[in-house]
Amino acid sequence: MDSQSLIAQARSGQPRAIARLISRIENDAPDLPQIMGQLSATAGSAHVIGVTGSPGVGKSTTTAALVGAYRARGAKVGVLAVDPSSPFSGGALLGDRVRMQQHATDDQVFIRSMASRGHLGGLAATTPQVLRVLDAAGFDVVVIETVGVGQSEIEIAATADTSLVLLAPGMGDGIQAAKAGILEIGDVFVVNKADRDGADSTAREIRHMLELGVRGQWLPPVIKTVASTGVGIDELVDAIESHRQWLHDSGERQARRLRRIGDEIIALTLTGVRKQLATMPAEVLAAAQRVLDGMSDPYAEAAALAAKLTT
Amino acid sequence: MDSQSLIAQARSGQPRAIARLISRIENDAPDLPQIMGQLSATAGSAHVIGVTGSPGVGKSTTTAALVGAYRARGAKVGVLAVDPSSPFSGGALLGDRVRMQQHATDDQVFIRSMASRGHLGGLAATTPQVLRVLDAAGFDVVVIETVGVGQSEIEIAATADTSLVLLAPGMGDGIQAAKAGILEIGDVFVVNKADRDGADSTAREIRHMLELGVRGQWLPPVIKTVASTGVGIDELVDAIESHRQWLHDSGERQARRLRRIGDEIIALTLTGVRKQLATMPAEVLAAAQRVLDGMSDPYAEAAALAAKLTT
Repeated sequence: MDSQSLIAQARSGQPRAIARLISRIENDAPDLPQIMGQLSATAGSAHVIGVTGSPGVGKSTTTAALVGAYRARGAKVGVLAVDPSSPFSGGALLGDRVRMQQHATDDQVFIRSMASRGHLGGLAATTPQVLRVLDAAGFDVVVIETVGVGQSEIEIAATADTSLVLLAPGMGDGIQAAKAGILEIGDVFVVNKADRDGADSTAREIRHMLELGVRGQWLPPVIKTVASTGVGIDELVDAIESHRQWLHDSGERQARRLRRIGDEIIALTLTGVRKQLATMPAEVLAAAQRVLDGMSDPYAEAAALAAKLTT
Repeated sequence: MDSQSLIAQARSGQPRAIARLISRIENDAPDLPQIMGQLSATAGSAHVIGVTGSPGVGKSTTTAALVGAYRARGAKVGVLAVDPSSPFSGGALLGDRVRMQQHATDDQVFIRSMASRGHLGGLAATTPQVLRVLDAAGFDVVVIETVGVGQSEIEIAATADTSLVLLAPGMGDGIQAAKAGILEIGDVFVVNKADRDGADSTAREIRHMLELGVRGQWLPPVIKTVASTGVGIDELVDAIESHRQWLHDSGERQARRLRRIGDEIIALTLTGVRKQLATMPAEVLAAAQRVLDGMSDPYAEAAALAAKLTT
């Protein structure tokens, strides 16, 4: 199908057209710049919610519960599940699929798994573009679920309007949370599996550490949930909506979007350089061999490589 | 102190000189290319062990136990603890410090915390250079302890000669492990806290998944440990040493080092581009504003930005 028809069908919300456009982004199709140029003009209204946290805290279950809650409020919801692309799993994992099954037949819900590895430039380069497609397709809310806490997740947090950080009781104390670097990236904190021992003390400890480190006007709330039974999910959605309202009223929403677009432009520029370097394996190997042989050093070789780039 | 004296003192193993050289790397000192050029020629014999795993599995405790075991075998050991630089913790965390205290007065042990954020180019750019310093200073083994599993950790795995992946019983099943993308990055798997319920089944499940996905000649062993009491640590060191021997015999060690240097050169090249982009905030902001206003798209702006780079 030609790009024009695809774009038109995606704008009218047809899932297959949306999926195909996202595939073109993942495959770095040659006409991507043109497609993105046409989508840009209409994009910018979906509220993007990032869901991060260590494996096992219940991100998939919470994401599924959020989708249900937003659907109940009449919103059209997109879900991007960012998986490490594993040779064992072939991308999307059964666990997620099972949990998301209840929403799979709802045409107001679009679910997509994305591989976090193997992308030149990582998620920073592709996620904003996928968001642009979903935005143009009229989704009110897009939930991005990520795996673990690391560089990709920090990138996702920079991409989201509202970043949720999930914790579970007994997964480690406040020092572990600080160590994982998650205190700074959350707009809303969720202590999931709150029916377990220690939920109150985990919530209290996180609250305390957040109060010590409060930046700006927004003090992130800490919500206790049991996502598997739906306990606390309405409170969580209310907290997200409060943050959304605050972003709008404070002007922070516009500031974040501008920053996000700037980050995207930088990521695309770096991707272009990475792509060029990827076409030069023989040069890189020869340079590495000279360093290994003690004939040169990595800095000199990097400078020589940079001089071969055409911009 | 001038670079020549620093390099000479670091080569003779003086901890303060080593620490100062590492600071110069972290601060991106102007004379870094010269320093690295001089160190390169002597580097390449330390065995680099990467320690990764989710928060709470006992990475710090295991690292401390490994240091003790290697010291008992007469090795000189370096430790790099890669922390997210948190405004709450100011970098290194008390927990680690306490656990490592027993080694702090041993002059055959060098311990350093490194911040994983705020570095242009991330760990990929700085870690190989820090390793080069430790290598030149005569360390037999360098343990790199990282936080969580994410992009930085995958980079560390690419940097290590032997990557350990730590798990704990009850932290999640095999699907969670696959989901976290850790099956592919480990050379040796460790089920720590093996005195807890479920250790055997976790070990069995990981072993099974590893056998399904075995790549090449090395099947990663799965070792059960209780790092806090030292149980299993000798077996772990034996497993690491077996892998070290295999790397050597198979030629994989040389191949990995060549690849690692190639990655370093690419990272340094990209860092150079990132630095240039960081000097152009007004250009990036103006470009983002044009995209936000619907007058342009990110691809066109990235291309325009790339054209302004000087290489």
